[in-house]
Amino acid sequence: MRSAIVTIGTEILHGFILNTNSLYLANRLQQFQIINSLMVTLPDKVDEISKALAQLIREYELIVITGGLGPTEDDCTAEAVSTTVAAPLERNDNEAEKLQLKFQQKKYPIPKSNFKQVYFPKGAVVLDNPLGTAPGFYFQHEKCHIFCLPGVPSEMTQIFEALVEPRLKSFAGRISQKMHIVKTMGISEAELIDTVKRSKVLDGYEWGNMAKPEGVFLSIRLHNPQAPESEISSINAGLESIFGKMIYGYDNDTLPTVVQKLALASKLTLSCAESCTAGYLGKVVTDVPGSSAYFTGGVISYSNTAKTRLLQVSPELLKTYGAVSIECAEAMVQGCKTLFKSDYAISITGIAGPDGGTAEKPVGTVCFGIAIPEGRVLTFKRLFFGNRDDIRKKSVFHALNYLRLFMT
Amino acid sequence: MRSAIVTIGTEILHGFILNTNSLYLANRLQQFQIINSLMVTLPDKVDEISKALAQLIREYELIVITGGLGPTEDDCTAEAVSTTVAAPLERNDNEAEKLQLKFQQKKYPIPKSNFKQVYFPKGAVVLDNPLGTAPGFYFQHEKCHIFCLPGVPSEMTQIFEALVEPRLKSFAGRISQKMHIVKTMGISEAELIDTVKRSKVLDGYEWGNMAKPEGVFLSIRLHNPQAPESEISSINAGLESIFGKMIYGYDNDTLPTVVQKLALASKLTLSCAESCTAGYLGKVVTDVPGSSAYFTGGVISYSNTAKTRLLQVSPELLKTYGAVSIECAEAMVQGCKTLFKSDYAISITGIAGPDGGTAEKPVGTVCFGIAIPEGRVLTFKRLFFGNRDDIRKKSVFHALNYLRLFMT
Repeated sequence: MRSAIVTIGTEILHGFILNTNSLYLANRLQQFQIINSLMVTLPDKVDEISKALAQLIREYELIVITGGLGPTEDDCTAEAVSTTVAAPLERNDNEAEKLQLKFQQKKYPIPKSNFKQVYFPKGAVVLDNPLGTAPGFYFQHEKCHIFCLPGVPSEMTQIFEALVEPRLKSFAGRISQKMHIVKTMGISEAELIDTVKRSKVLDGYEWGNMAKPEGVFLSIRLHNPQAPESEISSINAGLESIFGKMIYGYDNDTLPTVVQKLALASKLTLSCAESCTAGYLGKVVTDVPGSSAYFTGGVISYSNTAKTRLLQVSPELLKTYGAVSIECAEAMVQGCKTLFKSDYAISITGIAGPDGGTAEKPVGTVCFGIAIPEGRVLTFKRLFFGNRDDIRKKSVFHALNYLRLFMT
Repeated sequence: MRSAIVTIGTEILHGFILNTNSLYLANRLQQFQIINSLMVTLPDKVDEISKALAQLIREYELIVITGGLGPTEDDCTAEAVSTTVAAPLERNDNEAEKLQLKFQQKKYPIPKSNFKQVYFPKGAVVLDNPLGTAPGFYFQHEKCHIFCLPGVPSEMTQIFEALVEPRLKSFAGRISQKMHIVKTMGISEAELIDTVKRSKVLDGYEWGNMAKPEGVFLSIRLHNPQAPESEISSINAGLESIFGKMIYGYDNDTLPTVVQKLALASKLTLSCAESCTAGYLGKVVTDVPGSSAYFTGGVISYSNTAKTRLLQVSPELLKTYGAVSIECAEAMVQGCKTLFKSDYAISITGIAGPDGGTAEKPVGTVCFGIAIPEGRVLTFKRLFFGNRDDIRKKSVFHALNYLRLFMT
């Protein structure tokens, strides 16, 4: 079964809104025996939606549509679907009653325009929306299953998980895991690919690769998606024998979750001193719920005064070596560890750009300090490419990776 | 002229990567006399790309393709385009030489697979990629202009701005501004819309609205996109007379850029003390280049020890009121201002969830402190809905908005 994800919204085509619904849906469809083969975004126009849908219905067995179910004039998904499959819109009295109740509870007069949301193509199954005023709907046309869902992400995901996934399971079959992701850091994309190929450890597998600030990933299509455990163990064993600690995790693992797991297991704490990243590392570490159990805090030492006063970096050191130096990173991380009395500490100081680079220290130069429990401090210097955000993001994930290497 | 944005990448269709390139491109296309009418994501498969492209070339005058120009086997955009327009791939010796130089500079042996990146459809104009190894290319086929760009966002945007936009200007015409965005905070979406409608100040305009953690936005289609200045002034004057300081900016303004402008104009400095946001505010403030001129630093006081030791919050206060309290926010911001000797300071302490909520202080409860130059401290308490990231992001932007209100 092949699927297409359709997003309706002129505001997306004009660049005002990032389309996160398609990512969510593509990710959820991985649980089923479905190959998602297309994503498309269309304007709020009946004729353009109808024309595209007519073609998609012939080519795909599953279409998930989001957006265009609101009460405003430009919302026309139900009308477009109705036109395409020649099923006239009919008022659903039950939904009209539910809508009136929702507004009564809000003590808000019901705008007339909202009644548009209780008309559905004849024969459609209504998908209840407990979080909003736009119900979704489902119907089958020829060999194609069509789901229409509201565009508001929280409403859409609620309906998808409660009412769409059980249906997908019945007609497409749920599988345990289709793809296996292996996450590495410390090796270039080209080198990783070359080494995997030479090793022949993934021969017979369809696999791909992705390079992100978070690392270089391999994605491997499993042969047996119904019972993948032993297959995954064997793949992991093969890759670990070659790449060792360069592999930091699998599937849903991220560097902050891996570091958190290691810290909690050893009951050790972490603090950080951030200069060019200025809170980005703290933010990423605390994106993970439960991080307060090991992350004690940090200093954003964006000015030299903050470095000297809070982290006890000596003004002489700053004068001799500069704020972006191995020496400063070392002093920062020592000051940080002392200040927070933590077991581990990380420091980052660098030039994120676009200005501030010199011939000797170009934009992208970043120095790291890692303090480990037994008192040792290790330092690293890197040159990253990319824009300000790339350099800051890469700094954060490299710092976490350096820390991880000393935690295992 | 109508355009289609095409993204190539099986990893996007399988839900591993969020497609941000399309948002960027759609946004940039707004500057030209181009109506972007379609976004589509296709798998890394020559036949599927060729089939879709053949249809798009007939229907659109501009196609911007990103992705699939890498060195690996599944990268097949050049091949697919070559097939579609019947222009055989040819080696470009000049690009081959440049590629070898890039690897020499890195002191890295050049993998054979990279040479794939110097083959282009016959007749294509090569678009130089100074940030990476995958050059883009451009050519015209029948009435359709086709641009192929690498998928790495920083490389893609660099090439688009340097080499694509000048061409778009020549054949589509640049316009000054098509849409005007008005950014507010401190008013609900429903109230904003109702007030705009009742005021009739946007009558005659096609306009829409968006609610984001960064505020509630109005987007207004201008009548005169070639010389919009006086029209914009008149719209702004009308809206400002109703919404006053609830409007924080226009178009490319963001809360951090607005705060930075105000701080630099008054030569006043800022520091921050973050608990539940744990660096998110510092990160957002320093996303803006030049922020080091006013942002001196911050404390991530994720543990109570950090609050008492660094910010001088008394243990008694924490015991009596708890870490998530107006009282703690006040003590944090005072401690922060003293520590950094800054003119302004912000503190944030709250419950981001998913755990840690109580009946009295549910998840989403966030307290803020704002210290202003003359010594006064103001505090606020809010309840935000959403998941952990929503709550943290809303906290950051609300804090910046509180600060802004006291800066003007």
